[in-house]
Amino acid sequence: MRSLVAAPDVSPDARPLAVILAAGEGSRLAGHQDGAPKPVLSLLGLSLAERTITSCIAAGIERFLVVLGHRVDQVRAHYQEIAARRQCQVEFVTADDWKLGNGASLLAAADTVAGETFLLTMSDHLITPSLIKKILRSRPREDGICLAVDRDKTGVFDVDDVTKVVLSDNRVVRIGKSLEQWDAADTGVFFCTRALFEALRQARTQERHSLTDGVSELATAGQVKAVDVSGESWIDVDTPKAFREARRRLLTNLTKGGEDGYVSVRLNRPISTRISARLVSTEITPNQITVISFLISLLGAGLLSVGQYAVVLVGGLLVQLASVIDGCDGEIARLKHMSSARGAWLDTVLDRYADMAVALAVTYAFATAHAGPLPWIVGFLAAFGFIMASYVTKEFVIRTRRPYPNDIFNRLKRRDLRILLICLGAVVGRPFEALALAGLLSHVCVVGVLIKGWKRGGIRQRTA
Amino acid sequence: MRSLVAAPDVSPDARPLAVILAAGEGSRLAGHQDGAPKPVLSLLGLSLAERTITSCIAAGIERFLVVLGHRVDQVRAHYQEIAARRQCQVEFVTADDWKLGNGASLLAAADTVAGETFLLTMSDHLITPSLIKKILRSRPREDGICLAVDRDKTGVFDVDDVTKVVLSDNRVVRIGKSLEQWDAADTGVFFCTRALFEALRQARTQERHSLTDGVSELATAGQVKAVDVSGESWIDVDTPKAFREARRRLLTNLTKGGEDGYVSVRLNRPISTRISARLVSTEITPNQITVISFLISLLGAGLLSVGQYAVVLVGGLLVQLASVIDGCDGEIARLKHMSSARGAWLDTVLDRYADMAVALAVTYAFATAHAGPLPWIVGFLAAFGFIMASYVTKEFVIRTRRPYPNDIFNRLKRRDLRILLICLGAVVGRPFEALALAGLLSHVCVVGVLIKGWKRGGIRQRTA
Repeated sequence: MRSLVAAPDVSPDARPLAVILAAGEGSRLAGHQDGAPKPVLSLLGLSLAERTITSCIAAGIERFLVVLGHRVDQVRAHYQEIAARRQCQVEFVTADDWKLGNGASLLAAADTVAGETFLLTMSDHLITPSLIKKILRSRPREDGICLAVDRDKTGVFDVDDVTKVVLSDNRVVRIGKSLEQWDAADTGVFFCTRALFEALRQARTQERHSLTDGVSELATAGQVKAVDVSGESWIDVDTPKAFREARRRLLTNLTKGGEDGYVSVRLNRPISTRISARLVSTEITPNQITVISFLISLLGAGLLSVGQYAVVLVGGLLVQLASVIDGCDGEIARLKHMSSARGAWLDTVLDRYADMAVALAVTYAFATAHAGPLPWIVGFLAAFGFIMASYVTKEFVIRTRRPYPNDIFNRLKRRDLRILLICLGAVVGRPFEALALAGLLSHVCVVGVLIKGWKRGGIRQRTA
Repeated sequence: MRSLVAAPDVSPDARPLAVILAAGEGSRLAGHQDGAPKPVLSLLGLSLAERTITSCIAAGIERFLVVLGHRVDQVRAHYQEIAARRQCQVEFVTADDWKLGNGASLLAAADTVAGETFLLTMSDHLITPSLIKKILRSRPREDGICLAVDRDKTGVFDVDDVTKVVLSDNRVVRIGKSLEQWDAADTGVFFCTRALFEALRQARTQERHSLTDGVSELATAGQVKAVDVSGESWIDVDTPKAFREARRRLLTNLTKGGEDGYVSVRLNRPISTRISARLVSTEITPNQITVISFLISLLGAGLLSVGQYAVVLVGGLLVQLASVIDGCDGEIARLKHMSSARGAWLDTVLDRYADMAVALAVTYAFATAHAGPLPWIVGFLAAFGFIMASYVTKEFVIRTRRPYPNDIFNRLKRRDLRILLICLGAVVGRPFEALALAGLLSHVCVVGVLIKGWKRGGIRQRTA
């Protein structure tokens, strides 16, 4: 289920209708997940259909026309659920002769598409919002279409199966799966005018019924503009192998963003993404995970306060476990496209309370065994360093209106490292020393951030 | 030195030239400050001339034309200093017959004003940036001017001396100082076209040389549009009495903004503004005051840690003194229009360190006299509450992209109250109990802010 055609003369800000082809049988994935139709197949907690819709929504599209064919009722019901959950408008058209090819399916929508232009994609393609935004920014000719193409041939998944294009001057001149010489891969995302329907009708007169056949008509006439989206992640999920690759990519993307600390990248994320991959199919919500992680931290802190090696060891392992699980809330929220300001707010504040509990517990245990105020003063300062480490970057964001860069200070003062240090301290029977070290590290980083903020903050006059 | 005329057909975003009349003698303020010319007179650390310029800059104006007359060299040199310090462009024109009247002074600028429109104000008027913005948003007729008028007659300072206007349908129809019946006061701020020069020439043929005479010509022809700026603070600083009033208003404005806590409003600000009013004429910088306040806090904390009543008492008073002085840095920065992101950054972070020092010191003193871990745990939690109280509102700002409202939680968790509590605790010999109370209050407020943030943060989907 892959093919092409796109449309012209649209301002970059237009938020057109998206037409989604969901009529095919998806035979190569048959048997997967009890023989559910392909759009309904669940990939890390969300169906392929919902992933396409959420990507479109994130790119600014709010209206959808879904072309049904195979198992009409089941697929329509699924899209109706998505429409209710994601608060978008979804209409349907049924392609009676969908078995002829995806071009025939799309032609069924010709009378229903009201506007001049529309985005076209497939229910089984995993695409990013930024890929969609890129093609929406392009301006197709009035009598043509735009096709998003990927020039990075080595990065294309399953090269044998992909539809290929030959380019000339940013125009697609040939298209097909079996081209020997080719310049880029067809990503299956189009920005179309109604010219595509004309081309599909033309191809139909020659008994050619695929979308590629229609696009080929337009390409011959020089009416297909190629939009380069190289570097964007996209995949046609039409085989079990592609399904696994899509899953792998989604999980890999969770650790991207350059926001993580050293320990997160090497230790916590590899574990938490595995946990998230399992939890994402359950009903558990990200906020519930936030609270569970917090409770495990408190339990760990309780054990750390006891002072006996075996108990402290378990406490140390528990706070590290909580630190790992602390990554799952955000991961599941991202996987299910349900990130919320509220969840992030809860998570950040509870993290601070968890830090305090751990610092207090470790200090208490050490002070019980060592008389005098020194343990308390050290613990006090360490805990203060932990919060200040978070505080100064918040302050930086507010003052400079930009995120604090993920520099060495930011990485060394992160919670992932500090918790691991304390866990390792518990393992070697020196949790307090580890706490002190983590505190010292935090203060050094606070000073580093402070200096950076000072250098950034030029003298700006305020208006009265 | 007061008078009028304004100009048309300007887009609201235009950033016109400002013409500043600084030619007059200011005889009624003669003898003030060793007989310095009026524009050079210092009012709370900045000259009247610099206050006009900084208000204009804050309203978006960057080019100035200053009309000189009395003491040309001294006034010009002063404006050149301002231009260098405030990084704006200032040009000059000398009015040879300035003694005839301020209309004659302005006429000297007729050949130098290049554009179609210009803002006109006086070097001795204290005006707010928002007043200037309001008149710049108005659109005068091509052959007319705009005049900012104040309809709040009871709020006008020195009614006898002020220039008055009679309005009809938002047009100024009469203008003069001795009108019996009048509708509004002339604020001395105009948005002009070159029509004003014509009107001044017309008046000159009748030996009438004041700006008011020129404006009167235009008013008769219905060419003066009144722009209502009621509610804005403005004052013509031409007598010792007006000078004192201007000073009073500047100091009063320091406490405005609704950002202060209860203790700040009632106790700290009344004292700190008096200190600032003295310090503002010295060379001391806001950042130096920030550091001095911090050092006093540390000294106070040191004394609080000793435990003997007399010493603790002095320590408590010192931290309260530091809290009062902590207001002066911002006040002086605002009075001198030298607020900086850098200064605010330093101030916020040092406040947290000062809080920590005080909490640690009070806890240490109490724990020395009372065995067991309880004092330390309480002190730990109190200190944690202090930082979290600041932390959660920062987080709120970042999440919601708006300031946290100055609600009861915000007021009760502020530093001013917390420090005063500890000071009062020191006075009655119970600093630790006061610390615990302040900590409890902080935690209650943190929970309040947390709930408010949770309610605000609706589920928003993030783009990938």
